Order: sequence, then C-alpha cells, then structure tokens
Amino acid sequence: MKSTKKLKPIAAIVGAGRTKFGELWYKNPEELLTEAGIKAMESVDYGLRRKDIQACYFGSFLYQVTNKLALLPGYMARELGMNIPMSNTEAACGSGGSALYNACHGIRAGVYDVVLVGGFEKMTDRSEKILDDLMFAGDSHEFDAGYTFAGLYASMMARYIHDYGDADGGVKCREALAFVTCKNHHHAIGNKYAQFRRDFTVDDVLNSPLVADPIRMLHCSPVSDGAVALVVVSPEVARKYTDTPIYVVGSQQATDDVSISSRESLTGIKATRLATEQVLKRTNMTMRDIQIAEVHDCFTIEETFFLEDSGFCKKGEGWKIIHDSYESFKGSKSKHIPYVNGDKEMVVNPGGGLKADGHPVGATGVRQVYECFKQLRTEAGENQVDKEGLNVALSHNIGGTGGIATVHILMKE
Amino acid sequence: MKSTKKLKPIAAIVGAGRTKFGELWYKNPEELLTEAGIKAMESVDYGLRRKDIQACYFGSFLYQVTNKLALLPGYMARELGMNIPMSNTEAACGSGGSALYNACHGIRAGVYDVVLVGGFEKMTDRSEKILDDLMFAGDSHEFDAGYTFAGLYASMMARYIHDYGDADGGVKCREALAFVTCKNHHHAIGNKYAQFRRDFTVDDVLNSPLVADPIRMLHCSPVSDGAVALVVVSPEVARKYTDTPIYVVGSQQATDDVSISSRESLTGIKATRLATEQVLKRTNMTMRDIQIAEVHDCFTIEETFFLEDSGFCKKGEGWKIIHDSYESFKGSKSKHIPYVNGDKEMVVNPGGGLKADGHPVGATGVRQVYECFKQLRTEAGENQVDKEGLNVALSHNIGGTGGIATVHILMKE
Repeated sequence: MKSTKKLKPIAAIVGAGRTKFGELWYKNPEELLTEAGIKAMESVDYGLRRKDIQACYFGSFLYQVTNKLALLPGYMARELGMNIPMSNTEAACGSGGSALYNACHGIRAGVYDVVLVGGFEKMTDRSEKILDDLMFAGDSHEFDAGYTFAGLYASMMARYIHDYGDADGGVKCREALAFVTCKNHHHAIGNKYAQFRRDFTVDDVLNSPLVADPIRMLHCSPVSDGAVALVVVSPEVARKYTDTPIYVVGSQQATDDVSISSRESLTGIKATRLATEQVLKRTNMTMRDIQIAEVHDCFTIEETFFLEDSGFCKKGEGWKIIHDSYESFKGSKSKHIPYVNGDKEMVVNPGGGLKADGHPVGATGVRQVYECFKQLRTEAGENQVDKEGLNVALSHNIGGTGGIATVHILMKE
Repeated sequence: MKSTKKLKPIAAIVGAGRTKFGELWYKNPEELLTEAGIKAMESVDYGLRRKDIQACYFGSFLYQVTNKLALLPGYMARELGMNIPMSNTEAACGSGGSALYNACHGIRAGVYDVVLVGGFEKMTDRSEKILDDLMFAGDSHEFDAGYTFAGLYASMMARYIHDYGDADGGVKCREALAFVTCKNHHHAIGNKYAQFRRDFTVDDVLNSPLVADPIRMLHCSPVSDGAVALVVVSPEVARKYTDTPIYVVGSQQATDDVSISSRESLTGIKATRLATEQVLKRTNMTMRDIQIAEVHDCFTIEETFFLEDSGFCKKGEGWKIIHDSYESFKGSKSKHIPYVNGDKEMVVNPGGGLKADGHPVGATGVRQVYECFKQLRTEAGENQVDKEGLNVALSHNIGGTGGIATVHILMKE
C-alpha cells in the first residue's frame, strides 16, 4: 500500500459539495455553482468561515454561448459576497480539471492557504441547440467539413475496432465498448446525485438509436445541468479543518492539436498519455498503485483509450480487459466491477462516470475529484467501493477530443 | 528612487511582442496570438528556444460568442507545436491581466521557470454585432432592463459630474473628462502599433456624436483586433535570457459585484481600490513611487476613477488633477503630459491607453504590461517617456464595469 509519507503533497481537499446532475430547469448557472460552493464549505468537519476563502477557481465551458454569461468572477463576487481573486478557466470538457490544476498552483505558490474550486454547466437552457454549441469543443474546420462532436469520436471508435478488435468481425470488441456503458450505469445505482440510476444490458446499448456509426445513443454521455465544488487548502493547514484530509499528490496537464485529423493516432489520446506519464513519475507510482479512477468516459471509447494511454494495459488491449470484466460480471451481484490486468486491479468510474452520473461539462472534472474524495474518505454511502486499504485514486479529465488532459492523483494519509 | 533590492520579485519579464491594433480583417484570432507569441519569444535578448516554454497562460473575452472558438489550448497546441499545459482565462476586459496574474502563480509555485502569457481579441469579425456581444461584460439583468455597456459607464460618469464636478455647471469637469481623450491620443502619436495616431481637441470630444449622455463617441475606447504576448520567467533564471529583465514585484486581484446597481458607490471602482491597496502594501510603496501607469481607460471616466481609487488623489479630485494637466498642456509641445498632485507625478497611459492604442479586449491587460516593459527598458522608441531614473510602472486592468481588477507593479533592477 502506497503511503503519502515519502511524497510532498501539493494540496489537500477538506470539503466537497455538489448538486444533483440532470435537468435542473429552475436554477440558473450561478445558483447551481453557489449551491455547490456553500455545500462544500459547510461540509468542512471543523468548520470554515466564508472569510477563510482567499480565492476561487472556476471552470465552465459554454456559459457564454449557452447561458449568455461572461465575467463569472463578478457574478460569483455577488453570489458569495466576497471581493477575493477569482478566475474562470475554459478548456471545453476539461474546464473543471483545469480549474483544480490552476488552484493547485495558487496553493503551491504560497499565495493562498484556502481556495474554493468549482465547476458548473447549465446545458438544458438551450434545449436541442446545445448540440450545436457542443461543436465548440472540436476544431472549427472539422465542423465546417460536416462533423458532429459524436462524429469525431465515432471516427476514433471505428478506427479502433478496425485496427484492434476486428478478429471476429468486431463482435467482442463491440460488446466490450457497450459494456463500458453497462458498468458505469450499474455503478451509478447507489449514487443519489446521478442523472441515471438504472441498469442497461449490452443488447440495450447495441440496439439503441444510431448517432454516428458505430456510436449509438447509449455509448454517449448525456446533456446535463449541475455544479460541484471543493475546498482546497495547503497541506500545512489541512488538519485545522479535518482529521481526514485527502491529499492531491499529483497534478499534471498536457495539450495536443485540437483537431483529430492532425494527431499522431486516431486510437488514443496523446495528451492523456503525457499527463498520466508525468503524474505517475512525479508520484513515483505505476498504474498498479491506482485503486480507483474517475475517467473521462464522454463516449465509451474514451474510457477504453484511457486504459491504454495510461499504461494500465497495452495498446489495443483495452477492450479485452473490458470484455474480461464483462465475462466475470455475468451473473454476479457486485456493486462495482473492476478492471483487472495481471496484478493490476482498478475500479473505473465508481460514481457512474460522465455516462451515468451525468456530464454538465464544466462540472465534470471537479465531480471526478469529488467522487475520489468521497470514496477515499469512505463517505460514498451506498456507492462506497468495498476495498480494503483503499487509499489511492486518480481523476482524468479531457477537453474536446483530447486537445487537453488533466490528471490528478489523490491519497488518503 | 525605489530599488528592487529589498523586494523579492515574483517573476521577471524577458520578452514581449505584439501585433498592431486595429481592424485586422485578414487574420484569425489564433494567428494573431501566434504572431504576438513568436515575436515575444524572438525578442528575448540571449535567445529562447521554443522548448524552453513550459506552459502558456492566455486571456480572451469574446472568442466563443464572437469568433466561434473554444478550447483555445487545443488550437494553440497546434499553432505553437507544443504539448505543454495551457490555460485560458476569461474575465471580460480584465482577461489579459488575469492571465498574467495566474501565470505569476505558476512561477511562484516553482512549477515553471518559463511561461508564455498572451492576450488577444478579434472583434471585427462580427461587424456591428460586436456591440451586442460586449453586453456580456455587464450584468445580464442590467441589459434586460435596457442598458448598453456605454450606458453603464454613462450612469457612473453622470453621477460623478453631479457629485463632484458641478460647481460651475460641470463645465470644467466635462473639459477634464474630455481631456483624458486628448492626452491619450496625443500619447499614441509615437506608438507605431496604435490604432489611432492623431490629436483631438477638447472641443472635438465634446462635439462628437452622443452615445449615452454624457458619454460621446470620443470618450469611448474603440473596437479593435490584436494580440500581445510576454515571456515571463522566474527571477532566478531571468539573467540567462537578458541583462535587463523587468521584474513583476506586485500582482494583485480583487472582485466586486458584476452589477453597478449593487455597488457601494457609482463614483469609483471598489475592486480597483482593493487591488491597488494590496499591491502597494506588498511592495511597500505609495502612489508617489509610481512613475508611469497603464490604466484601464475604456471610457475616460474610468481613468479618472483610477486616480481616486488608487489614492493618487482624493475622492472627487481626479478631474481637477486632469484639468490642471490640461491647463499646463495648452501651448506646450511635450510628448507626454503627466498628472501632478503635490509631490506625486505620474505619466498615465504613455502608450495611448485603450482609448488610442486600441482595446482588443482580452489583449488589453497584456498590452498594458508590454508598454510598461518597453518604457522601463527605454525601448519605447519615439514614444519613450523622457524621465530620469524611470524604474517603477503600474498596470491596471479591469473587467466589465469593475467586477474584477488586476494590478501589477513592474520594476527595473
């Protein structure tokens, strides 16, 4: 079991709050963020006064085009009644992870001891127009050429099946890529904040309406509203706020060409590979040490890529690992279904992932860390991963089709 | 003369580049930013290899709604051919200052030694629609109530004239608020990058078309395209890149309610006051030490507020200081017209300010620091402020009507 003893933590998380994810028609974006922020502050064990907060780091994607908002610091200065520094970072679906990444710098710089990190998105304001707005997460030339956002991932998924999964006509590979959905929805059943809490079968996925071949509706994460916030403090003051801080021991980010047509490969995300390599190096870990991972499963192929990009398994073998889980899950009653590769075992998306918990875009990167925080503190309720010695979690948040990736490693003391 | 000896610098600027500001119809936003970035890198005295850059911090306001772009890190990873961490911060007209503020944290944290900071805006893509887009810099309720962005500043200016300048029916106060335009346009004559390089008289301003009473066209900063970039490094490595680094010795930010209707006062900007107080305290300075200041003159009333909010003069006396400059300027041939208050003397907006240099919104906060950098290095060419012992400059960048303010103090060694 890994210990933080030899690692100098970057920051500590001492509070976390979130809204339900789903169609929250009667709340505006800044209300959602405020609700999550206040819940996070109120969750701090030994109390946190509002004036303890020295800065805020927010992440959101489409607030400008979808919600007709800008200058979020001014709105949040009003909502929270504070005049402190605030920053809002946009990195498409990676906005939340970027906000935490920047917050860690503020803490490491010694400028702040206590900051609030928040991510939010209010997508249902625009009804079906949101699908046009989501096209902002890809390269403008790709969309001029006729691509939809799902179409981009469909190209990657088709190429993956062609290159690595075609031995039996792609049957098993397609089953595996469908099972990611089943697993994540199964995981969300115990998550009271999740947008969807029901099981689906592989057949359900493979028979759901076609969106962009080979992507079907149930391969896709949903359109969601929601917000999540964390109270992030310097490791030195963490014990003032709780006996069970969760430490950020690794925080890395990498970028890549926004356009899939210019990438080295269609069957993996270079930014994920770089950020994960760096974060593992910094923490002196391998994927063997990661017990739970909140992974960016905007489409099920993306979770598959993560297994390979992170080095959990070899290139082209992610779907096999997933298929093995599928086989071992049949007939089982387990609450969580781990991925296993030799001596590596990892529960991926214990909270349901983007797929079932929901994907209010800018909130996602923060929600992933929220879930890791709750799991490591054994506070995930019905959804608690049942694993002895659970103390290392990883969160992986990407923007668009992989133009940016941010990876954090979290540890219990 | 202040010396950096007793101050621990936060960061050092070793390179700076910018595009011309104006109507740049044939370049897209990411091209402008790349042009500025490459110029900044190439300007480094002892050379900078692209791979020396460890992260990028960008600021932009309306790129999403005006330019139909998002996930800027992905675009810039392509343009610059790099896979490093990148962050894009939006804080309306304060986006550029926020980008530098965040970059300073990255440096102070010891995470990076060399970063690129860039601000950009491409506003003419939308022709007259940009005026609707600019409404995003205010409170959505104010705009629902019928305000334009200029209208918000008009309320503040009208109230200021009423409260403080009405002794002679407001004549002198109005002359002073017009003279800010004349001064800044006069300053821009020697600035080869400026959008407007010609003199205007106080009569020109007071007879220009009415926009929102008492604001006339020539009280307003223009709609502009442009980009600016800086190479920012840790103080420890600065000498590797140049013999004349310019040090960032203070970097502060504050926020306030986005809506003017909820503020404590209509005749000043609280966020400016807080950020300036803090930055002066940190650097052990008073406004007496500030020799040049690049101030956010989106409308001329805002430059007037700065004189008062910063403590350069008392509340309600800014226009008098400006009027004194007007009187002493009459018939003079000086290139720059300082503001004088007792033993305080400061050249405000030596480069022409937002008013004449141009206001590509997200670029502005970075352009202000660019100008300070050039002035302190005596590299401002025709536009160089002629002042012995010039070594302290301040830049002041706000978002919207003052929802956020970021203030930096820069020093030569």
